[in-house]
Amino acid sequence: MKIKRSGRLVDMTYYMIQHPHELVPLTYFAERYQSAKSSISEDLGIIKQTFEESGVGTLLTVAGAAGGVKYIPTLAKEEAVAFIDELCQLFTKPERLLPGGYLYLTDILGNPALVKKIGLMFASLFATKKIDVVMTVATKGIPLAYAVANYLDVPVVIVRRDSKVTEGSTVSINYVSGSSKRIQTMLLARRSLAVGSNVLIIDDFMKAGGTINGMVSLLEEFDATVAGIGVLVESEDEDIEERLVEDYYSLVQLSEVNLKEKAIEVIPGNFINHYKEMKVIDFGGENE
Amino acid sequence: MKIKRSGRLVDMTYYMIQHPHELVPLTYFAERYQSAKSSISEDLGIIKQTFEESGVGTLLTVAGAAGGVKYIPTLAKEEAVAFIDELCQLFTKPERLLPGGYLYLTDILGNPALVKKIGLMFASLFATKKIDVVMTVATKGIPLAYAVANYLDVPVVIVRRDSKVTEGSTVSINYVSGSSKRIQTMLLARRSLAVGSNVLIIDDFMKAGGTINGMVSLLEEFDATVAGIGVLVESEDEDIEERLVEDYYSLVQLSEVNLKEKAIEVIPGNFINHYKEMKVIDFGGENE
Repeated sequence: MKIKRSGRLVDMTYYMIQHPHELVPLTYFAERYQSAKSSISEDLGIIKQTFEESGVGTLLTVAGAAGGVKYIPTLAKEEAVAFIDELCQLFTKPERLLPGGYLYLTDILGNPALVKKIGLMFASLFATKKIDVVMTVATKGIPLAYAVANYLDVPVVIVRRDSKVTEGSTVSINYVSGSSKRIQTMLLARRSLAVGSNVLIIDDFMKAGGTINGMVSLLEEFDATVAGIGVLVESEDEDIEERLVEDYYSLVQLSEVNLKEKAIEVIPGNFINHYKEMKVIDFGGENE
Repeated sequence: MKIKRSGRLVDMTYYMIQHPHELVPLTYFAERYQSAKSSISEDLGIIKQTFEESGVGTLLTVAGAAGGVKYIPTLAKEEAVAFIDELCQLFTKPERLLPGGYLYLTDILGNPALVKKIGLMFASLFATKKIDVVMTVATKGIPLAYAVANYLDVPVVIVRRDSKVTEGSTVSINYVSGSSKRIQTMLLARRSLAVGSNVLIIDDFMKAGGTINGMVSLLEEFDATVAGIGVLVESEDEDIEERLVEDYYSLVQLSEVNLKEKAIEVIPGNFINHYKEMKVIDFGGENE
């Protein structure tokens, strides 16, 4: 189709958003619109500038014969700060308190707009890391893992606590839950993860870190590397003698739950400090 | 920010894609860009035309004081047909066969690009239905349900087979699995679904339909209405005396699994016939 710049801009914007972190050769667009590469470059310049001004990401240009353009979705710092504030507000609602001091989070995890934005937060933070796959454990972490993976354009693998016939052969490990000190099992389908993968672990909740530590042990069985760990909520609990996981990022931190007074105290997690310190996302020498 | 048409087109395209099925007042854009409403209308005309020509959806204009514009993501018929062919190809790979005649689908369900497109297929099919929420059962249906819900801009509720302390009080039912005839339990957090909701049921696999029938029974407990049923794969099994669910759409149909010869036969499901017959998506009187 031969179309005008205005139509090209709409179509290219749509295409780039649908294909984050994917290198698109300029010839793809040149052929699609029967346009000169120079016109396509100009169009991409306009898109890049608009994305950066709106704080929704950037376009990276990779030069050379195997080159092209890549859309990196990110969230502007002010928006990230505002979103974490919004999350903190949401978490402190007293009606979340369940018997035993547990928190009801199903409404947050069931809201696609919130889930997408949480995904974008972690995808921004890990945008420059080499990540082959996002891993989580069934079931509450699943939507978050897919949201992150969508923005990073990588597959998701799901660790389970019980074996399913539809998974084929599995690798299982035993691990000790950090807070209850009970021995538990988790397993992963053998063919779901390639040996040597770089894995980003995403989960909804971390207390002492036993579950995440279990996933780290499971990764060793696949000779895989932990590329990063991100959790929506971490709980700061006095009962926790020591945290089993050290290098992680949390969006919010549960600092106190008072069942009697029906009060929940939440503060921003360590994510935001790290994010604020990032002057600019450093893509190495890849960007021209 | 005061920006030129080219920048506005990029920014508006981004915004509309991020907010499907959401009515955006024209004043939102007019204020954002400090532009006249007439210019915004022209921009939206360009976006609408480009989306329709590329077969990625349309913009609906709602007139009046409470009016605005709404992005309805859809998939062009040829693309839907091509995608179902692609799915059929993927399903027939002999290495999917697991002992007992089960199929390994984890790679398909773990691929965000495929999952997104499956979501878009169902979101297109149900674009004109009144849907308040997407429901699925843990765990394999979860990514599909979120993908559909993302495009429809509605929340997701997840039915479980076991009770979790973090869900609060639940409503549970017993149901009979259609193929194994065993009695099973499923439950849903009481506060996760509002009474009287219109519910789209999405799942990965349907054999006799016992699980989906269970979800339908569960919905009765919430005085909720089934707005539609969509499954990725249905299995045509001679052992099934009668299908428990009648009104559903499937993307692919498993017609034969031969363990000995390692052969899987797959044909397009009933989705595609229905989709092909839709001359044009009918939005009633809403579109000008």
